[in-house]
Amino acid sequence: MIYTAIMGHGVVGSGVAEILLQHNALINEKIKDEICVKYILDLRDFDNLPYSDKFIKDFNVIAQDDDIKIVVEVMGGVNPAYDFVKRCLLSGKSVVTSNKELVAAKGAELLSIANEKNVNFLFEASVGGGIPILRPIAQCLGANEITEVKGILNGTTNYILNKMIVDNMDFDAALALAQEMGFAEKDPTADIGGHDACRKICILAALAFGKHVYPDQVSTKGITDITLTDVEYADSFDCAIKLIGSAKKLENGNITANVQPMLVSRSHILSDVDGVFNAIMVTGDAVGDVMFYGKGAGKMPTASAVVADVIDCAKHLNARKYIDWADGSSDYVVTPDEKVRLYVYIQSNDFDMLCKQFNDAFSDNTWHIKNDFKKEIAFITNQDYESALMKKINSIKCDELKVMHTLF
Amino acid sequence: MIYTAIMGHGVVGSGVAEILLQHNALINEKIKDEICVKYILDLRDFDNLPYSDKFIKDFNVIAQDDDIKIVVEVMGGVNPAYDFVKRCLLSGKSVVTSNKELVAAKGAELLSIANEKNVNFLFEASVGGGIPILRPIAQCLGANEITEVKGILNGTTNYILNKMIVDNMDFDAALALAQEMGFAEKDPTADIGGHDACRKICILAALAFGKHVYPDQVSTKGITDITLTDVEYADSFDCAIKLIGSAKKLENGNITANVQPMLVSRSHILSDVDGVFNAIMVTGDAVGDVMFYGKGAGKMPTASAVVADVIDCAKHLNARKYIDWADGSSDYVVTPDEKVRLYVYIQSNDFDMLCKQFNDAFSDNTWHIKNDFKKEIAFITNQDYESALMKKINSIKCDELKVMHTLF
Repeated sequence: MIYTAIMGHGVVGSGVAEILLQHNALINEKIKDEICVKYILDLRDFDNLPYSDKFIKDFNVIAQDDDIKIVVEVMGGVNPAYDFVKRCLLSGKSVVTSNKELVAAKGAELLSIANEKNVNFLFEASVGGGIPILRPIAQCLGANEITEVKGILNGTTNYILNKMIVDNMDFDAALALAQEMGFAEKDPTADIGGHDACRKICILAALAFGKHVYPDQVSTKGITDITLTDVEYADSFDCAIKLIGSAKKLENGNITANVQPMLVSRSHILSDVDGVFNAIMVTGDAVGDVMFYGKGAGKMPTASAVVADVIDCAKHLNARKYIDWADGSSDYVVTPDEKVRLYVYIQSNDFDMLCKQFNDAFSDNTWHIKNDFKKEIAFITNQDYESALMKKINSIKCDELKVMHTLF
Repeated sequence: MIYTAIMGHGVVGSGVAEILLQHNALINEKIKDEICVKYILDLRDFDNLPYSDKFIKDFNVIAQDDDIKIVVEVMGGVNPAYDFVKRCLLSGKSVVTSNKELVAAKGAELLSIANEKNVNFLFEASVGGGIPILRPIAQCLGANEITEVKGILNGTTNYILNKMIVDNMDFDAALALAQEMGFAEKDPTADIGGHDACRKICILAALAFGKHVYPDQVSTKGITDITLTDVEYADSFDCAIKLIGSAKKLENGNITANVQPMLVSRSHILSDVDGVFNAIMVTGDAVGDVMFYGKGAGKMPTASAVVADVIDCAKHLNARKYIDWADGSSDYVVTPDEKVRLYVYIQSNDFDMLCKQFNDAFSDNTWHIKNDFKKEIAFITNQDYESALMKKINSIKCDELKVMHTLF
């Protein structure tokens, strides 16, 4: 018998409890042992559940029970999850979590404690919900040197952008609809500000490149200033606007990482990822591009990924799984001046002057659209170093300016 | 030191040798041991390679060398691969293979021997080349009951169909181009006849549903009779024609499985999978749809998947990985009468009669296109039981008839 405890009985936690109880026979067959949920930690009361007798309110019960071998942390937030998880690992218990904030902030330290104690710290559900991604990177692509990871890491923002693109809704209306549908939280800041995607790219980059990346090292831009005008111009350039998180290994061993809305060419498969779906593209030196696609959030998808990790822990109670990375460093994440193509939107009431400046600076074969009536120009630059492009762009005098990166 | 042998030095075999030798340090770090290729079995001579000294021509050298713990089989074909692999497993060696024909024909038996001998038999590369798919199904989706697996499993046919769609080439021209580009073999029968996709859906179904599926149990149709006319009508219905392999679990525990060209709606992400790419969609009761995408063939992608399995074997020399399934049975794969929407093409020199019959049988709100000049009608039926639809379709008197399934 393998005893487990679940910390947190919110959306994901209740899903984990349901799967562990409903699919008990299936799971026991896989692990060739019996798994039993002994405690569920939550400060709230849950009186009418078939497993109400399992609820406790004091973490110390779990910490002090040597029978508990696997602890599921699905409380969310860094505190007190960090303290609880650390104490569980230190007392020789394996921990499974879906908590991206915790892993992005403290992953290297917790993995190192798990390593010392020869227990597992697994967090497949922290990126892409139920989409298998961390284990495939660590194991299936183990013969590759991974050079880049990028993708649509947040379903809420993808839903909002999709509604703007397909239904011509403006940002506020699309956000309100997402909230109504339960795809966005009341306080949507973490999603629309790009912070949720940022935590996920930190975890992906750490796993792919072997060194912790802290959220504040990742240049992060959300989707709050995307307008219907941008969406329409993007469409004219045969692109869709997507919030893309990406991390790339540089030749000197450093990496570059950022989260930003990008114009993604419709010939790129990431442009076809619609609604609340996520998709993560991994580039390996041998395999080329592989992509993992599915619902990136939701109670049951996320819970199923947590339970898969529990199964893995149960099968490896005395063996370490090989998810691991080293501490980060302040000079590890850099912003190199690379060749890019930029989307630029400029507007000026002095449209003749705007056109003249545009013609002077970008007279070569740049894709562009001029709108005399609205006195604005949108264009996609030719490929050049970002610094050189930005110098030219910033020299244009205008009333409004917006620049976005592209993915072709 | 962990000694390995590679059987076969063709396209994939030479890739495996290259990765094992070039990425040796990276791999040794992952397995925390040293891996060494001791023999490469091939009847041909390879005199000018840096590792020419490793070649042998007699399988018995490998079979009788107790130092060899992991054998890579990349010869292809059922014989003599089956005999060699069986003898390796029986003598306590783990085996890694990319040989889909072997696994589809003999998987259950070989897995059972591996189980008895407590060694591993792994074959991630046999489906989807370098795309991680078998391990994610077995492990990451372990908390799900999988209900359906379907996808684009053959890059050659996808390339040909894509050329027909995008460049308006006819089938023969597209096939010739695929051969010229090295995407199709001189004898393309296994690809264009659907047999390659059939072997892969057998393996996927066996893994997903737990019981061996033999290739001759899968209704298999290739793409050889797809015409530009079909492609154009499909486009008019906002669909792309794709060769889809699929397997679905039925409520009574049986499964249905087939390989066939289908009209895939452009709103379905499988329709966006172009060129030589593969994509496999897995439906789980908790996770919903997840999709795995990448190049499904090629030397280095496939070799990298083989090496990932070698790494896994090296880390589990005395432990079984949990890829397993039971023997098949003759009554396991069935063809239930399900509700479907069909694409139908009918042509008759007596066009008035054709139209009258069409109007009589399909007067309801079916999508259709009539071409007076070519005296043909293409339509997509409303959803109904396949038997009922086929009865109505077969009652139409015409000179030409074609029916395809659809995926919306």
